[in-house]
Parts: sequence; C-alpha cells; structure tokens
Amino acid sequence: MFKKTLEQVVTYEAGKPIELVVREFGIKPSEIIKLGSNENPYGTSPRVIEMIQQNAHKASLYPDDSMFELKNALAFKFSVKSHNIIIGAGSDQILEFCMQALNHENACVLMAKTTFAMYEVYAKIANVEICKTPSDEHKLEEFESLYCATLERGKRVSAIFLCVPNNPLGECLDSESVEQFIQKINKDTLIIIDGAYQEFAAYKDRAKAFCVDRLIEKYENVIYLGTFSKAYGLGGMRVGYGIADSKIIAMLYKVRAPFNITTLSLQAAITALQESEFVAQCVEQNAKEMLDYESFARENGFNFIPSYANFITLSREGVDSTHLCQWLLQKGLIIRNLASYGLNAFRITIGTKKQNERVFELLKAYIVNHS
Amino acid sequence: MFKKTLEQVVTYEAGKPIELVVREFGIKPSEIIKLGSNENPYGTSPRVIEMIQQNAHKASLYPDDSMFELKNALAFKFSVKSHNIIIGAGSDQILEFCMQALNHENACVLMAKTTFAMYEVYAKIANVEICKTPSDEHKLEEFESLYCATLERGKRVSAIFLCVPNNPLGECLDSESVEQFIQKINKDTLIIIDGAYQEFAAYKDRAKAFCVDRLIEKYENVIYLGTFSKAYGLGGMRVGYGIADSKIIAMLYKVRAPFNITTLSLQAAITALQESEFVAQCVEQNAKEMLDYESFARENGFNFIPSYANFITLSREGVDSTHLCQWLLQKGLIIRNLASYGLNAFRITIGTKKQNERVFELLKAYIVNHS
Repeated sequence: MFKKTLEQVVTYEAGKPIELVVREFGIKPSEIIKLGSNENPYGTSPRVIEMIQQNAHKASLYPDDSMFELKNALAFKFSVKSHNIIIGAGSDQILEFCMQALNHENACVLMAKTTFAMYEVYAKIANVEICKTPSDEHKLEEFESLYCATLERGKRVSAIFLCVPNNPLGECLDSESVEQFIQKINKDTLIIIDGAYQEFAAYKDRAKAFCVDRLIEKYENVIYLGTFSKAYGLGGMRVGYGIADSKIIAMLYKVRAPFNITTLSLQAAITALQESEFVAQCVEQNAKEMLDYESFARENGFNFIPSYANFITLSREGVDSTHLCQWLLQKGLIIRNLASYGLNAFRITIGTKKQNERVFELLKAYIVNHS
Repeated sequence: MFKKTLEQVVTYEAGKPIELVVREFGIKPSEIIKLGSNENPYGTSPRVIEMIQQNAHKASLYPDDSMFELKNALAFKFSVKSHNIIIGAGSDQILEFCMQALNHENACVLMAKTTFAMYEVYAKIANVEICKTPSDEHKLEEFESLYCATLERGKRVSAIFLCVPNNPLGECLDSESVEQFIQKINKDTLIIIDGAYQEFAAYKDRAKAFCVDRLIEKYENVIYLGTFSKAYGLGGMRVGYGIADSKIIAMLYKVRAPFNITTLSLQAAITALQESEFVAQCVEQNAKEMLDYESFARENGFNFIPSYANFITLSREGVDSTHLCQWLLQKGLIIRNLASYGLNAFRITIGTKKQNERVFELLKAYIVNHS
C-alpha cells in the first residue's frame, strides 16, 4: 500500500521535551532546565506574549492565508517584495516544500556530512540520492568536488544544502565564499541557504551575514531560509520563511497547504518583527554567555567547535555522550546527544547565566563521578 | 528545476479572511460577518481561550512532539490506542501524509465529483491519476463501478476519499452503507473517511455516525479523520487527527515533520476535548439554526441540499453566484462562492441567530435589487 522507499526513512528524533522528563523521572517542571532544542532561553518578548493573549479569542478563525501583513513586514525588513516570500510552519516546512517540488529525476542532493538532520529526512521522503561531503563541517571545496563528480557520473544535482551557521556543529561559512561557490553552480540546481541561526552569526562576525536582497536578485537559483524559532523566541509557534526569486516562490506555493501556520502564530510573528530591541538583547547576551562556555571548556578539558549560533558542541576524551546525557537527564538537565549524528559529542543550547552555571556545575560533577 | 507535473496544480482558493474585506472595502472588522469557512460561529470555549492565555509565555518552547497527552485523550475518547493516532496541522495534513506515503505506481485515486478541493490538490501534487464519480454528491454504487472499471483497465486504486458529510454540498452517507462498501474493496486500497463535520451529522442522524474503534479494528485499510477546526472551535489552531491500524499510522509518521502543530495548539486541543458541553451546545444550536435556513430557502425560492454539517449550499434560478458573493462581500458578508467547484451555487456557514438574520436580510435585498 505504501511506498517501499519510505522504509529507509528514519523518523527524526526531536529534542526531548520537559513533559517527558516530568513523566519519566518525576522531576518538577520548575526544576528542569531545557537546553536541548536551541530555543531562546529568554523566552518570548513580553509584547508578543501580550499580543497572543489579546488574540486568543480568535482561535476559532482561520488565519489570513494571504499572510499579507507578515509578508509585507518581512519584505520591508529584507528589502524584497512580498512575491519573493513564502511562509512555512518553521523554516523546516520550506525545506519540505523544496524537496517536494524539485524535479529529482536522475539527480542527487548535496549536503555536509554532519548537518541538520531534516535535510536527509526530507530528501529520503522525496526518494532522491543523498551525497555528503567527507568532512563533518561545511567545506566549500568539498562541495565543489562533489558537485563536479556528480555531474561527471551523468547525474544532475537538484539541490545543495548550506547550513550557515551549521546545526549541530556551529561552524559558519563566510557569505562571500558562499557567493563565489554559487557562481560555479548551474542555474538548474537550487541552492538552499539555511539561515536559521543567522542572527547570532551576523552579530559575532559581519563576514557571515548575507545580503539577502542582492543575493536573490543576482541568483535566480538561490533560496534563503529564516525562522522565528530561534532569536525571535517563537519556537513553539512554528513560523519560518523562504526568500527567493518569485518564480521559485510560485512553484513552492503549489505544494503549500492553505492555512499552514496558525492564527496566533501569524499575529505573534508580525509582532515579533517589531521587537528588534528584544532580539538584539538576546543575541548580545548569547554572545557573552558563549564566552563563558568557551572558558569552561578550556579549563575542564572539553573540546569545542567555535560556534556562530546559540549552542555549542562539546566532547571530552573518555566521556560517552549517551551516558552523560542520560545522567544529566536524571538531574533535570536536557541537552542534545549527538550519537544519532554518529558523533560522541553533545550540543548544549546557550542558556541564561543561571542555567549555564548549573550546566557547568553538573558537567564538573559528572567528570568527578565518572573518571 | 521543478517537477513538470506541478504545473497543473492549481493553488487552493481559501475562504476570504476578514482582513481582506477590511483592506479592500474599508469596512470595520466589527461590521464584517464571516460565514465562508465553516468556522464555529460561537468561537472557542472560554476555558480554552483562558488556557491559551495562561500558556502564551511558552511560545518560545517547542511542543512535546510525542503529543503524549493529546493522543491519550483522543485514544480514550475513541476507545483506541495511542499508536492508532497521528496528529496533523488540521486533518488536511493527514490527507497530505496519505497522498505522500502511498504507493501510487500505476494507480489512481477515487473521489466524488464535487467534494473537498484539497483531495484533488494533494493528489495532483503526488502526481496520481484522479477519477471522479459522475454525480456531484457521493453515490456508493458509482464509487463501486468506478473502482471495478479502474481494476478492469489494469490500474490499482491507491486511495478512495469519502467525505462524510460532504463539503461543500452537505449530504452524508450512512455509516452502514459505507461499511458494506469497504467490504468490496481490496485491502491494498486505503479508504479515507473524512469526518471533519461528523459531530454535526451524528447529532442530526445516528445512522451517519461511525464506530471508529470497531471500524479500524475490522478493516486494516481504513483511516478515519477528525478535526478540532469545526465543532471544537479551533479553526485557527490547526489541529486534526487520523485514526487507523497502527501499521498505517507508522507509515504516515514517516512523512510527518516533527513539531507539526504549535505548543499552544497542543494545549488548546487537550483542553477542548474536555469541553464536551460547549461542543454539544454548538452542535445543537447549529441544528436549530439550520432549520431557519431551510425555511428561508423554501420561502424565498432558493434550492438547497439537506445538510448534515454546519453549512448549507444554496442556489437560485437567475442568480449568478459570483455576482451575489461579490455584492455580499461589499456589504461585509463573507460566504463561499462555489464557482471554483464548477457550480452556480454558494455555501453559507450556519452562523449565530443574529448573523443568520442579517444573511436572510441581505439575500432578500439582493433578490429585490437584481430581479
């Protein structure tokens, strides 16, 4: 009855929710620290919360499916037109639209060895061959070789995924080098620039920032993805966006179901865009706290990858990440084990000062108890 | 770059939102009556609204992706197990999962000539042949002939859509006759029973109600769909569900993206399930108001189809539905023109007493002015 090719699709293992820790370990919700899903530890802007509360009575009404106001606000922010924008239930959904809409006949998609797991999931659902670079982190020269090698063996490349900065590792390509790379790729390959964590990268280093309007005007085969789930503090509301040439957007619209975000999500995103001060403060605080993680890592023998996002990936000789994560879970701390990525490492969302101090305390305790 | 087959996909024309009428005609939102999208005219239960407000601060947190509590509550309501349930962003999304996951090789899907437009949209995206019965409304003998004729020409039938009651016409098959029909269909065809408006049908006539637990236990190729968008008053929150044999659910899970409903939607749906009194009142009031529509139609020369849902489809000799709907729109009344379904008819959601009186007034005024 179902497609045989689906058998190889592995269901994505989402970060563990607070509810699960409550259920499994009987820990009070107030005592649980969740730093496993890269949510904004400062929560949602107070004005956005207020706006959700004021609009709660509209829960029975479908949203304005044209998303007129949100698209206008995003168009203004990015200096593009409304017809260059598509809204998704998270930028995830835009990835799904791309994989569904692209012609994958005799094609494969390219991605880094260790990158956002959903690229692979959506590609497998679309039943397209997946080619990964040899290195875990993004190396454009490897992407280029892989691209050329694919063409040489008579295959097309339907899409290339670039995660800038890269989740779950944290490294980030320079936007200029990405642009030079784009110029080497044929126009029939969609280049997906996933900027879910761009706000953090752009703050740390301007060389990582993309000039989205210029990019999509110059390259008709590029789509830039952004999200409200991270810096904007709306992970639970599921809103993301894609920005591209209007011809790409029109094709993605064909696979979009109507009302793909909720009435309250739409309102929340519109308001969140006006809260640039809140976002700026969160991003700035993230950078400060990141320095504490780096100091902690250096002082306690942890390896880390310098991160341009709101998380840091750590490992330590002799520490089994699965064992560590399970031990922390029992203490009420949720972080992300990277064993499912094939790495003996773990990813921690940069939390508030208080949360981070607790993380350091627990990691030290683990080492004392397990070495 | 994109699939050629997408060119024939026509983007679904959603019911017009209040915001559009405000923008285009400058009418105050408070003066607009929206009866175009079959939302609950009594809104959302007060306790659900309160719960959304109380949980608004959790907008930054991803939902519990296991949907443990909601699935448990639904399992209890329908006397099934959690593993028989999948949650979608509206029951729409479950339709999408089905179309994405099914093996459509050498197959077609069957549906009534005039039924929920998204069946066709999702089928076209999946690039599967669509076969429609000759009659607008559901006639099981026509489905049976169509099914046999399809097999005779060497094709498989991957799915059959039954909309009970049927949107946008309002008629409803008896559950017993549906079951007799199911017995004639091979096990490799998925039978999709779309019960989006079942609460209204079951209230009007018990012969329309499905015994979901028995149905899915007896037939491993049936999926029943329900939604929180209609009787439960949560159209804007995008929550629906599919109930089927666990093997079907497991395959649909493979094409489901994580976090496919929002944190507040999850909370709202859990609370809405506890508000059976509110739902019962809405359904009862709908039935009463429906009688007024029928009387109005009879007294004023409108044709109507007896409806088992929360809407009624009307037509009238000499009335052009497109002209009528546009005229009503300018007066601030949004109803649904069925011209896009190829019918010179219009669908009106049964509103509150006050809203319905205004509808009757405007329809009378239109006839006086245009005949």
